[in-house]
Amino acid sequence: MSTISLDELNAADEHGFVSALSNIYEHAPWVAENAVRKRPFPTLAALADTLQQSVTRASGERQHALIAGHPDLASKAVRLDTLTLDSQAEQTSAGLDRLNAEEFERFHRLNKAYREKFGIPFIVCVRRHGKDSILREFERRLRNDAKAEQETALREISRIAALRLDQHVRGPDRLKVHGRLSTHVLDTYHGHPAAGVVIEFFEIGASGDARLLSRTTTNADGRTDRPLMAEQPIPISQYELRFGVGDYFVRQRTPLPDPPFLGVVPIRFAVAEPEAHYHVPLLATPWSYSTYRGS
Amino acid sequence: MSTISLDELNAADEHGFVSALSNIYEHAPWVAENAVRKRPFPTLAALADTLQQSVTRASGERQHALIAGHPDLASKAVRLDTLTLDSQAEQTSAGLDRLNAEEFERFHRLNKAYREKFGIPFIVCVRRHGKDSILREFERRLRNDAKAEQETALREISRIAALRLDQHVRGPDRLKVHGRLSTHVLDTYHGHPAAGVVIEFFEIGASGDARLLSRTTTNADGRTDRPLMAEQPIPISQYELRFGVGDYFVRQRTPLPDPPFLGVVPIRFAVAEPEAHYHVPLLATPWSYSTYRGS
Amino acid sequence: MSTISLDELNAADEHGFVSALSNIYEHAPWVAENAVRKRPFPTLAALADTLQQSVTRASGERQHALIAGHPDLASKAVRLDTLTLDSQAEQTSAGLDRLNAEEFERFHRLNKAYREKFGIPFIVCVRRHGKDSILREFERRLRNDAKAEQETALREISRIAALRLDQHVRGPDRLKVHGRLSTHVLDTYHGHPAAGVVIEFFEIGASGDARLLSRTTTNADGRTDRPLMAEQPIPISQYELRFGVGDYFVRQRTPLPDPPFLGVVPIRFAVAEPEAHYHVPLLATPWSYSTYRGS
Amino acid sequence: MSTISLDELNAADEHGFVSALSNIYEHAPWVAENAVRKRPFPTLAALADTLQQSVTRASGERQHALIAGHPDLASKAVRLDTLTLDSQAEQTSAGLDRLNAEEFERFHRLNKAYREKFGIPFIVCVRRHGKDSILREFERRLRNDAKAEQETALREISRIAALRLDQHVRGPDRLKVHGRLSTHVLDTYHGHPAAGVVIEFFEIGASGDARLLSRTTTNADGRTDRPLMAEQPIPISQYELRFGVGDYFVRQRTPLPDPPFLGVVPIRFAVAEPEAHYHVPLLATPWSYSTYRGS
Repeated sequence: MSTISLDELNAADEHGFVSALSNIYEHAPWVAENAVRKRPFPTLAALADTLQQSVTRASGERQHALIAGHPDLASKAVRLDTLTLDSQAEQTSAGLDRLNAEEFERFHRLNKAYREKFGIPFIVCVRRHGKDSILREFERRLRNDAKAEQETALREISRIAALRLDQHVRGPDRLKVHGRLSTHVLDTYHGHPAAGVVIEFFEIGASGDARLLSRTTTNADGRTDRPLMAEQPIPISQYELRFGVGDYFVRQRTPLPDPPFLGVVPIRFAVAEPEAHYHVPLLATPWSYSTYRGS
Repeated sequence: MSTISLDELNAADEHGFVSALSNIYEHAPWVAENAVRKRPFPTLAALADTLQQSVTRASGERQHALIAGHPDLASKAVRLDTLTLDSQAEQTSAGLDRLNAEEFERFHRLNKAYREKFGIPFIVCVRRHGKDSILREFERRLRNDAKAEQETALREISRIAALRLDQHVRGPDRLKVHGRLSTHVLDTYHGHPAAGVVIEFFEIGASGDARLLSRTTTNADGRTDRPLMAEQPIPISQYELRFGVGDYFVRQRTPLPDPPFLGVVPIRFAVAEPEAHYHVPLLATPWSYSTYRGS
Repeated sequence: MSTISLDELNAADEHGFVSALSNIYEHAPWVAENAVRKRPFPTLAALADTLQQSVTRASGERQHALIAGHPDLASKAVRLDTLTLDSQAEQTSAGLDRLNAEEFERFHRLNKAYREKFGIPFIVCVRRHGKDSILREFERRLRNDAKAEQETALREISRIAALRLDQHVRGPDRLKVHGRLSTHVLDTYHGHPAAGVVIEFFEIGASGDARLLSRTTTNADGRTDRPLMAEQPIPISQYELRFGVGDYFVRQRTPLPDPPFLGVVPIRFAVAEPEAHYHVPLLATPWSYSTYRGS
Repeated sequence: MSTISLDELNAADEHGFVSALSNIYEHAPWVAENAVRKRPFPTLAALADTLQQSVTRASGERQHALIAGHPDLASKAVRLDTLTLDSQAEQTSAGLDRLNAEEFERFHRLNKAYREKFGIPFIVCVRRHGKDSILREFERRLRNDAKAEQETALREISRIAALRLDQHVRGPDRLKVHGRLSTHVLDTYHGHPAAGVVIEFFEIGASGDARLLSRTTTNADGRTDRPLMAEQPIPISQYELRFGVGDYFVRQRTPLPDPPFLGVVPIRFAVAEPEAHYHVPLLATPWSYSTYRGS
């Protein structure tokens, strides 16, 4: 699915409009059909709201069919070739293609329990979660009652739809579906930004395993040229930044013991709000450092 | 070898004195023999100095024999049963019994190169070093000339002897052969020490592997009941303290996101001076922390 | 009144005992008389408890007389020569002899209002308060009802008595009437304690005026040889520590701009618990610093 | 003197050009006259450079006359009505109209000594200095030799000219004559910016006296709507920011002792580079804070 502008959507004929939005709400063209007559939409936010209301005001039957039309997460029954292309990309992003045998088994067990209890597939906006967070959500939501889960499923479908709109429709505004993760390294020994510090950025699994997401170097202002993450939700997960502080001070010809007291400084933190801005700076001397959630 | 008091050493007959100190300088009873007539020794420091001077003033031949009498480190040729009991304990302490195949091969290669270049075994006071530090020392010292290495070997023998004296002879004073590693956790959210914080203490290998050394919990004063390390040199190595800050704040019923921004806080640092005091405190709120080399 | 030991008090005849304690509860020898037969007291704490119970269990009339026997604070009617020697020393300590005209007027007005409302003098353990804190207490307590004030007056009399016991009777234990204020300066540029830092210690008035209490210099461990305050309650007040950080780094030959970014670092804080330990350290580089309530 | 655009200057006739710039180099129209034929100037920087070269390449006589044409600083002989309007505004900015008797006397004495030694008035770009810094400069420069002072006077005249150009000529670029002073308050108790914190900004004199420069309140991002200083050089001087941290936490309904440990937090620092950016943030909980020179 390629991108289209809001103007084009507003100007399209009915078939063109519905067809262009066919994959925003999966297998449910009626959601877009209900919105045709509400055009023109001045903003993406207005379009997203109208589509969501189309779902909220639909009959219980239609809502149920919408939910039931979603694929199971990570089960054997869901082979990649049966998913829409968007579903494929989303499920890959959360690491659902990196499950080890034990995790795969756990997913499968939870999925089965969920289907047995609620009669619907487990729906979650996977791009907002890391692998461990999805497992926790699974377990938490299994304790809900059916009504709460129906509502949760619709809320997650709406989040999925908003992210798809954000990717496929260009408008004068942006939907609030993106978080941002940034850092900044200050050298409080010399009193200026620390340039040239190598930063490795990892996702940390529940068992402590670290998966390298990116590697970058601070610029003259002690920042990274691009945010560590942006233009997407920051998946709910645990992360670790590793700052090459020792090598930096060696290059500054700072007097240091051998080995330096601080070599690689790890900062481990978790993201709980995927759409928020997390600024995680490091203030360091060869003998001390501090960090905080900044802004 | 059990412990003996300085008074007993001062009062012993010549044979008793030499025999009691027979394993301080390995296979070299003449070191103690030279010291017999310098008795009585008022302090351990005086005894240690006198023994060391006995070495320093010995002929080049005797010094060479003293050095040559030491076992190779970690070579196949040195089987545990051929070492004195003290040597066994010391070599175990630095992780020389935990070498993987690659490290073992590297040790062996360095050992061979060292012997070929200098004609003496590589001697290092292993209790002052972690495994990686010994490998670095090996490589660094291979670049020395023969004279510098002879001096270095004698200095290391004197360090080994001091540690053995410290363990086996009780006197009115203590030799300066011990470092200390301590921590302290302050809860700067509530403005008081953080009690009940679980701390895991690891040694970190050059390849990033973590080996758990101990696990403890902070007391009412935010400290550990005993120092993390004391009564020994702190081996030159990289360490990591992991503080269970998230669980602590959960128990304090502090308002926290799920997951908390800070769960386990890792602080990684290196020790370069085995006989120094390293105080590595943590000041933390649920959103920030700092650490420094304190005193 | 000189000091006496608990053993001597236990061994004294009845008259001696009562006479030795005559000034603990001002103008009320019956408090001590009731305690004579409870001897021997194993600890100061036991003696203090028994004296306090003697007050608590006394008739309302006697309690009222005890309260009424105390002098007014800072009124013209209370000239220094009419006070017992202990009262003089205590009232001096809180700065009641340093009232300016406006404060004197305010004291007088509050005192009059208090006497009119409650018919008793305003009693407060002045050694636990700075001048501003006493004025705040005056205003706060004026809003109480008579019963609450009678109880408060007795509690303050018991605090006064405990401090007098602490000063005049030596026993195997110490009463918990002392706070402690300490500091520590760490140089996180060099990674060691900052020795030779000049510290000025001020009390800060409500109007921002600073009164120098002491001036000291850090020792080799970055601490002051004696605590800034100890062996007394820390008066509830605002304080400021001024650390000569700029001069320190100049002496260390640290590269600095002219003038240095940090010259004198002021740390202003308030004490609310006179019997607590306040540790207020400074961690500083030429470009950054932090402080916290430590332990 | 009102503002003019660079385009207008480039297009003006010779007289108009010289006249428009008549007060950039005081009483020295020849500086502008030499630049007429170098037009058009693409940038302010190019214009400033050309004017400065006009001075640098002038004869020693003309340079001397340029220097001699400047008024004495702060002497009785210089009455406000004899200064150009620009000189008046500049001398006011550095507090030269706020001299007390002692400072006035010191200025006068230094001024006299300077004139006697060098035969020229003491010239300094006063907008780059606080009162104390000017006195220090005076004393420092009195120790120079005549040649160094002639050069220093020309450099200061060039700085004065650049600031006047910046104020009076609009171009496509800005001259690098401005510094910036900013702050940021982070509430590391709640993990977000501290909004509504009252900040008082003072200049601190050598004798410790504080002069209020501005009072502001942090916005939702914990910053001030406008920088504390911008669009001007930050005078070399000592400053103090006082943050109403206690009131802020009271408004957040944070549990606090009475009085709170931290009420007003003073941060005192000095500016040594008037054209630099000084970012001085505060990270605070009710029990701790830190600051640093940021970026």
